Amino acid sequence: MLTPAEAEHLILANTPLFPREDCPLASAHGRVLRTEIRADRDLPPFDRVTMDGYALRAGVLAAGGRIFRVEGVQAAGMKPRQLGPETDACIEIMTGAMLPEGANCVVPYEETKRDGATVTVVGDAVFPAGHSLHLRGSDHHQGDVIVPPDTRITGREIAVAASVGASVLTVSASPKIAVVATGDELVEVDAAVAPHQIRRSNDHALRATLIAAGFPRVERFHLRDVRHEIEWELRRIFAEFDVVLITGGVSKGKFDFLPAELDRQGVRKIFHGVAQRPGKPFWFGVTTRRTPVFALPGNPVSACTCLHRYVLPALAHAAGLKHVVPRTVALATPVTFKPRLAYFLPVKLSSGPRAELLATPEPSNSSGDFAGLVSTDGFVELTADQTEFGAGHLAQFYAWV
Amino acid sequence: MLTPAEAEHLILANTPLFPREDCPLASAHGRVLRTEIRADRDLPPFDRVTMDGYALRAGVLAAGGRIFRVEGVQAAGMKPRQLGPETDACIEIMTGAMLPEGANCVVPYEETKRDGATVTVVGDAVFPAGHSLHLRGSDHHQGDVIVPPDTRITGREIAVAASVGASVLTVSASPKIAVVATGDELVEVDAAVAPHQIRRSNDHALRATLIAAGFPRVERFHLRDVRHEIEWELRRIFAEFDVVLITGGVSKGKFDFLPAELDRQGVRKIFHGVAQRPGKPFWFGVTTRRTPVFALPGNPVSACTCLHRYVLPALAHAAGLKHVVPRTVALATPVTFKPRLAYFLPVKLSSGPRAELLATPEPSNSSGDFAGLVSTDGFVELTADQTEFGAGHLAQFYAWV
Repeated sequence: MLTPAEAEHLILANTPLFPREDCPLASAHGRVLRTEIRADRDLPPFDRVTMDGYALRAGVLAAGGRIFRVEGVQAAGMKPRQLGPETDACIEIMTGAMLPEGANCVVPYEETKRDGATVTVVGDAVFPAGHSLHLRGSDHHQGDVIVPPDTRITGREIAVAASVGASVLTVSASPKIAVVATGDELVEVDAAVAPHQIRRSNDHALRATLIAAGFPRVERFHLRDVRHEIEWELRRIFAEFDVVLITGGVSKGKFDFLPAELDRQGVRKIFHGVAQRPGKPFWFGVTTRRTPVFALPGNPVSACTCLHRYVLPALAHAAGLKHVVPRTVALATPVTFKPRLAYFLPVKLSSGPRAELLATPEPSNSSGDFAGLVSTDGFVELTADQTEFGAGHLAQFYAWV
Repeated sequence: MLTPAEAEHLILANTPLFPREDCPLASAHGRVLRTEIRADRDLPPFDRVTMDGYALRAGVLAAGGRIFRVEGVQAAGMKPRQLGPETDACIEIMTGAMLPEGANCVVPYEETKRDGATVTVVGDAVFPAGHSLHLRGSDHHQGDVIVPPDTRITGREIAVAASVGASVLTVSASPKIAVVATGDELVEVDAAVAPHQIRRSNDHALRATLIAAGFPRVERFHLRDVRHEIEWELRRIFAEFDVVLITGGVSKGKFDFLPAELDRQGVRKIFHGVAQRPGKPFWFGVTTRRTPVFALPGNPVSACTCLHRYVLPALAHAAGLKHVVPRTVALATPVTFKPRLAYFLPVKLSSGPRAELLATPEPSNSSGDFAGLVSTDGFVELTADQTEFGAGHLAQFYAWV
């Protein structure tokens, strides 16, 4: 049976890159940028005043000049004035303004005393050229790449894009994702539930997590264990959606029509089964249109774990993000796990005395106890090649979204 | 001047809890739950079969019985059958089904051989009562609290809520947030920009970050440095919004009409200035309707830092979330910082050899170089009481949203 790393490798190799599309800046947060953002002007675009005060010639100050004549006032957003030719000329100036032509430093209000049209620089502090100025091009030059491609767009990238006038960004298209719950035992959340029935929860949970992870175009479906319904619904779903997640229905049971129907519709099985707990029956395939199909075990803990371990990284990969190495954490208490399977163990994180990330195991009551996950931060992956994991054992950590 | 901790304390003390509202499950992710979620039935709600196989009496097996007569088949979602009174009776049964009355264990397919209506349990494996069953109430009992109040709703809470039939949740109302950019130097992103002008970026970035942090009801405004415009716009904003963020405009400049206007409209200043870099001129007040007003410095690095250090924690607090202690990280390289100010230093995180969270400083070129933040993960807070911070120094870390 495959290891989790082998399964992940096969999934990534069979998940093609999403196409690109244009996206207005106002809805670009959370998307993945596919081209770089370059500075359209120097940054800052002009010699920008950083303190309210008086713009004047630093050389005059250095030569002992202390009394200046205020020629006028210039606020942020005003066209820059021209400093008069007299050596004692100055212009009262506001933060954010462009330095007046002829001036080369700003003396802050706090260092001056004003009397009518005359201002005196008090004390003997030195104000060299460039003082209280953020000089043009001192951060970046016109044409510099300031956001590389394949970056997840957050508030910081939005700020950069806005400042260089990028009102439309080229991003990865947002995939249409179908989340398909299967099984006659399922009823909707607000429906009456008989003692032998359970309510749909996986499809709701997967949809919410996918949206939170930056993939908002999710639709939920429910397939009953009726062959012709499964056939028609799947045809429609494979024709319309870019990614398909199915929960339950991929086992050997008498009423599991799904594996045969997937086969009949040309979905090529890449693997079925991974040496892991939970989630051993995890199945992955691709349609004739190269749509990835993830069939997750119906157990909610398994479905949630497989989503975070495989599906979210695959979607990030398809969106163009570079592979993110999971954070390393240290077990806070020893763990024994006998089966020859990788063990995805729910944990709570805390900080140790030397800033270690400590993972305290909070194993579920049972593989069906998804309520037990509520208090955890994510899970660690303990590999199948050992059975005893001491306190301090290092493991990769996957955070719940 | 206030320390960051003192400023935070004053903000939290002046940020009232948001009211509650009902929210359908489908749009509840990211919201904060304000009541607990209880199990409406035992969890699992019935003795649930976990393997495809045959349901029978464990006692008969224990007494040496190996050959059973298959009375019928029962799939998940079917009403449970009654096992016949004969000791060799069994029912073929599917994963997810309710255990038939009279049976008390399930023997998986893999351990059996079928011939017509007869099934033989092969080998000598033992199948005690409860085998391949997830017993009713073994995880939680009816009435148990399975999600506590004041929890951020993620996919896991959605799964739990759905499974207990909670189709509508009581959550914190989503606040209407105004993000107000000020200054005549600002032009819209897609407008022509003169050499002395800059494009609006703060309001775009703050809006995107607030949405990503779970506060989607954000509107952007721009106030020019014109007194009557400022007056009328602020009146409208204070009447309509629950939280107000202003960037720029709270300094001593000639054209900064904002402080006087805030005062005139009854906004009570709680503080102005925090001993920190960046973000020293940070201002906080409350309106007569107790609306919190955050006036952030106009510099984008300062605005972004103050948003993460103060505004997002205040919103989380007002939404009812318990205070989250920031993660502790260790400096990867030494840092010297002379001013008697707290220093918010952008860093990149990595994992050390013992799972330490290492923070590598990536100081900006300048306090205006927001493009320099793109490659960082967040910032550490270095306190004002020392100037030399060695490698390994422990600090609190704030992640960029």
